[in-house]
Amino acid sequence: MSLHSIDPRTGKKGRPIDEAIPADVARAATRAAGAVAAWRSAPDALRGRLLREMADRLDARRSKIVEVADFETALGAPRLDGELTRATSQLRAFAADVEEGSYVEAILSPGDPEASPPRPDVRRCLVPLGPVGVFTPSNFPLAFGVAGGDTASAVAAGCPVVVKGHPSHPATSELCFETLAQAVTAVGAPPGLVSLVQGGASELSRTLVQAPEIRAVAFTGSQKVGRLLFDLAAARPNPIPFYGELGSVNPVFVGPAAAAARGNAIATGLAGSMMLGHGQFCTKPGLVFLPDGEAGDHVLAALVTAVDAHGVGVLLNSNLRASLARRLDATRRVAGVDELTARQPVPDDGCRAAPVLFATSLDTFLRHPELAEEHFGPAGIVVRGAASQLAEAAGRLRGQLTATIHADEKDGQWAAALLGTLAHCAGRVIWNGFPTGVAVVPGMHHGGPYPASTVSLYTSVGATAIRRFLRPVAYQGLPDTLLPPALRDGNPLGIQRLIGGEWTRRPR
Amino acid sequence: MSLHSIDPRTGKKGRPIDEAIPADVARAATRAAGAVAAWRSAPDALRGRLLREMADRLDARRSKIVEVADFETALGAPRLDGELTRATSQLRAFAADVEEGSYVEAILSPGDPEASPPRPDVRRCLVPLGPVGVFTPSNFPLAFGVAGGDTASAVAAGCPVVVKGHPSHPATSELCFETLAQAVTAVGAPPGLVSLVQGGASELSRTLVQAPEIRAVAFTGSQKVGRLLFDLAAARPNPIPFYGELGSVNPVFVGPAAAAARGNAIATGLAGSMMLGHGQFCTKPGLVFLPDGEAGDHVLAALVTAVDAHGVGVLLNSNLRASLARRLDATRRVAGVDELTARQPVPDDGCRAAPVLFATSLDTFLRHPELAEEHFGPAGIVVRGAASQLAEAAGRLRGQLTATIHADEKDGQWAAALLGTLAHCAGRVIWNGFPTGVAVVPGMHHGGPYPASTVSLYTSVGATAIRRFLRPVAYQGLPDTLLPPALRDGNPLGIQRLIGGEWTRRPR
Repeated sequence: MSLHSIDPRTGKKGRPIDEAIPADVARAATRAAGAVAAWRSAPDALRGRLLREMADRLDARRSKIVEVADFETALGAPRLDGELTRATSQLRAFAADVEEGSYVEAILSPGDPEASPPRPDVRRCLVPLGPVGVFTPSNFPLAFGVAGGDTASAVAAGCPVVVKGHPSHPATSELCFETLAQAVTAVGAPPGLVSLVQGGASELSRTLVQAPEIRAVAFTGSQKVGRLLFDLAAARPNPIPFYGELGSVNPVFVGPAAAAARGNAIATGLAGSMMLGHGQFCTKPGLVFLPDGEAGDHVLAALVTAVDAHGVGVLLNSNLRASLARRLDATRRVAGVDELTARQPVPDDGCRAAPVLFATSLDTFLRHPELAEEHFGPAGIVVRGAASQLAEAAGRLRGQLTATIHADEKDGQWAAALLGTLAHCAGRVIWNGFPTGVAVVPGMHHGGPYPASTVSLYTSVGATAIRRFLRPVAYQGLPDTLLPPALRDGNPLGIQRLIGGEWTRRPR
Repeated sequence: MSLHSIDPRTGKKGRPIDEAIPADVARAATRAAGAVAAWRSAPDALRGRLLREMADRLDARRSKIVEVADFETALGAPRLDGELTRATSQLRAFAADVEEGSYVEAILSPGDPEASPPRPDVRRCLVPLGPVGVFTPSNFPLAFGVAGGDTASAVAAGCPVVVKGHPSHPATSELCFETLAQAVTAVGAPPGLVSLVQGGASELSRTLVQAPEIRAVAFTGSQKVGRLLFDLAAARPNPIPFYGELGSVNPVFVGPAAAAARGNAIATGLAGSMMLGHGQFCTKPGLVFLPDGEAGDHVLAALVTAVDAHGVGVLLNSNLRASLARRLDATRRVAGVDELTARQPVPDDGCRAAPVLFATSLDTFLRHPELAEEHFGPAGIVVRGAASQLAEAAGRLRGQLTATIHADEKDGQWAAALLGTLAHCAGRVIWNGFPTGVAVVPGMHHGGPYPASTVSLYTSVGATAIRRFLRPVAYQGLPDTLLPPALRDGNPLGIQRLIGGEWTRRPR
């Protein structure tokens, strides 16, 4: 069997790509396990060098990668160029983190032989979990793809990786993988450190999650597939963590004063965020709570105009087009939901879709929980109600990657109460901004309560993403020379360590 | 229905205790959910005050608690007195941690409006997960009981708790719970913050794990029950983390030079650790790898003498006696396993058991994986083989809470290689010491790869145990006054925060 590159603009097939069989997945997992010992004991400097080498080689093939990814995704060269920059920045940021070394979270509790009972010397740091399975999504072929954040953070943590490339862009995955593999060879890292398996059969995914050598899985994709694989990971003889990022509707609340003061700017910003990448962002604001009244009416009218103006665009693949169509039809059938955007004619070639904006009342929204489910693509729902009741409804939302508040000074109390509610259903709360665009900074959290993610304690973006692939080990009573360098008295790595309740770079 | 306190020394029934029904569990979960909002927004100072009040009130009832626990567990007053001290120390240690405040792991990534694209201001800290279900074990009625480390760390994290008391010591659980509940009232914390449900029916446990309000479970107990409940937690409509500590055989490796230099001390120490609490410790060294040769023979002989001398003791309850008997019978039936200890006569009253030490060859051990399973109680297995082969066999061990190496200078290379292997199957590696006794210090890690624990990334002992019940939230673009105090520019809490890659208490 073989996969094909397909141009979603035209439906035209590109070149075929070899499809893996389950035995290939098992072989990749075995090779990953074979790389564990060498890579976990590789000095942080070598890990850093590999990550930088990967970034440099991706940069060197930039125009080719962008060209291939654009053919397969229709996301456009500027966006893909930016995405590749994001991927290489992530690799270099993780390189800097492992070179610096404090990511092992060393904690020293020196012993006290005079205490009663005598207190042993106990020192703890983080060590790699083992081989990681990575599932990449269709919508970020580069930043969350084969060379994306999950691969970068797992390799940085000292874990070999087996990536299942998304069948929507197989040539892009192959090209990125070849580039990473060349970097592995160039720095003399163990072969088997990074593998790629490609194919559309669900058996491949199952085999990867169930491979005995795999110790954790990172997944970005749909709730349906994510939950199936999560269940398999939990049902293993030895269950493993499954870090799934399953999407979100990213509610936006607009305060009455904000709507009155800068309704046009909010509407334009919202439409831009909702339609970015033709609505195919996990952080797309798909659910907008607008207060009753004139100011809200005005925002809604401006939003409809801006969404209409976005026009027909190309989706990533025909599966997404079909599932969006089903989802839109279901929403259209709900009594009390109005379709406000024009029905724009959609040419039959390729995977095109027109933007859609619905509106409904808070009552209808609360009676129909399915309206709170994601429309993946260029579509959103506006919910109207009294501001106070909208804020109350926030307490009934499921887990979200993000939640946004637009508020002016006069919205003060309303907004403050809402903030408290939203911080407990979302992974990130945004103030007078828009949720798309997830800054790769140490303070970022990209995750959230289920179903936004399967493990709300971890992020897939930002420096702390590396923690998903590390576990603590305590060393008790070891002679200094046998301790990992991170834990030795003299602090030869010069890292930050927690000693006596303070983080310090001093020797102990 | 009602539970009974039972004296394991005599089998005599004490007073009856009301048994809960599933509706009681559901009610407790609802009450816990009702306490969420008030407790998550309670200042850290109040959380600290509650934890200290709990500790003070437990101390005030010390003699009664020790008396009741001794009746129900036969662990003896000195041990139980020490255990209560451990419980109150844990409560006070968590109080100090939350009062200090840095446990929220604040990370500030200030924005840069001049960057291209402009970088938003993003700040992240940890917030409570929500209501936590706690399952307590039979073997640590105080330190891991109703007022034990799981309750302490969850309450410290800002999470209400519903505790399922172990049916082996219901009166102890009730007494500790009443004490905690009085503390809750005394400081004006929300009612419903701590609840206790008691009973032997497995339906109660299932109801607690499946209660929609529960957001995480902490469990200490057997692999069988732990796995059943883990599976239920994973199968929920919204899966929740299940932190299970399921036991371990805690392998000990003795180097040839160490055996020769201080064989008697090793044997005496090992026997003491193995028989501590009549072998009912999760960190009991149940599997000892001794090198072939005269020095090893001598250690073995001394170990048999010391274990024999330990004599018949009382187990915690009749279920444990029955399952130990079954386990010992299974081991006795394995060809090539020798029972070295004398068959001491065991009186029929109460839950008594004699100590047992088996020995076998490495070959037999490797052919019979069941020999690597826990004998919970006063029993252990010694495995003999060439030192080099013993070290190799270490790579085939399953996940462990602890692993121990006894080595002298001349064991150098052997021991160093072994250390590398053991650090990757165990949560704690001990050098020339013994695994029982888990120091409550920040550097401790009590956990390990499956089946030692269900989530190897977390500890149930030590300061970092609090992380199990916290998740990150990022705040983007918030005005300073609306940020949680931990994230404000001026650092009003004076906590350690990560800014620009350095932990600092300075304002930003």
